[in-house]
Amino acid sequence: MAKKTFPLSKVYGLLEPGPVVMVTTASKGRANIMTMSWHIMIDFEPPIVGCVISNQNYTFDILKATRECVINIPTVALTEKVVGCGNTTGRKVDKFKTFGLTQAPASCIKAPLIDECYANLECKVVDGKMVAKYNLFILEVLKAWIDPSCKDPRTIHHLGRGAFMVAGETIKLPSKMK
Amino acid sequence: MAKKTFPLSKVYGLLEPGPVVMVTTASKGRANIMTMSWHIMIDFEPPIVGCVISNQNYTFDILKATRECVINIPTVALTEKVVGCGNTTGRKVDKFKTFGLTQAPASCIKAPLIDECYANLECKVVDGKMVAKYNLFILEVLKAWIDPSCKDPRTIHHLGRGAFMVAGETIKLPSKMK
Repeated sequence: MAKKTFPLSKVYGLLEPGPVVMVTTASKGRANIMTMSWHIMIDFEPPIVGCVISNQNYTFDILKATRECVINIPTVALTEKVVGCGNTTGRKVDKFKTFGLTQAPASCIKAPLIDECYANLECKVVDGKMVAKYNLFILEVLKAWIDPSCKDPRTIHHLGRGAFMVAGETIKLPSKMK
Repeated sequence: MAKKTFPLSKVYGLLEPGPVVMVTTASKGRANIMTMSWHIMIDFEPPIVGCVISNQNYTFDILKATRECVINIPTVALTEKVVGCGNTTGRKVDKFKTFGLTQAPASCIKAPLIDECYANLECKVVDGKMVAKYNLFILEVLKAWIDPSCKDPRTIHHLGRGAFMVAGETIKLPSKMK
């Protein structure tokens, strides 16, 4: 997928609508994927993002050790792969291989981008103090990528137990909001 | 709106898809509303929710002082009021009056529910330690309400600068995910 860089000042608009994302990490040359819905914007620029990752997950261990990951944003076309990645563990399965996803190199970190996702955010952990109590990692987005041909991305939004709301129409109102 | 209580164990499914919410607070008998998109699920049950509220906002001061609020979830029918609440400050405006919204009493706290919203979550602040650094409040949902007649709520999801994605169709896949 031909991507271009995306302004860090606009990253909040990708995450605050609450899409399901796929978090990629890498350790000792092996990449992994985790499906995630528990994320939050914390600041605009540089974009600071919080995410809660269960300490039962393989990604928790890798992220704690390597302090870097990519937040990849899929669209509805990838839903089966998204659920597949959410129902397996990287301790047992090579998820890129199993689900036919393609690694693309990141520019700032070792974890790979998922090429099939329409947007990718390269992140590093900037604060791990809330990990012990809440499994909450504070990330800074170092670089963002987007597929410029994807105008109205049909992101998916988890409603629980495998049900997803698919992004519908877009409306615009005059607003002073950022 | 005739509401019934909603199981706390299912609250995550209301918030993790990333809807725009309206936070109500009350201080000295006067209620206020703030529009918000920066929230995150942190734990399932009791439901723990994080939310980032700018320290420039009137709601920040009230929430810090009273340590309670309601997270109200609107649908697309309320979009103009949602944007209106996001573009005004409770320091100058009575938002319930200005935007024609109705207060309904909460059962555990003093801040009111917005009756027109299809779901309402009564919350108390359980951890304020991340407020100074990140404007991040940790809330526990004490009680949840839902309009049982609203089957597929057309929530709105902020894309930045007054653009909103409206919830589209729902799809379901076999999944072990919660």
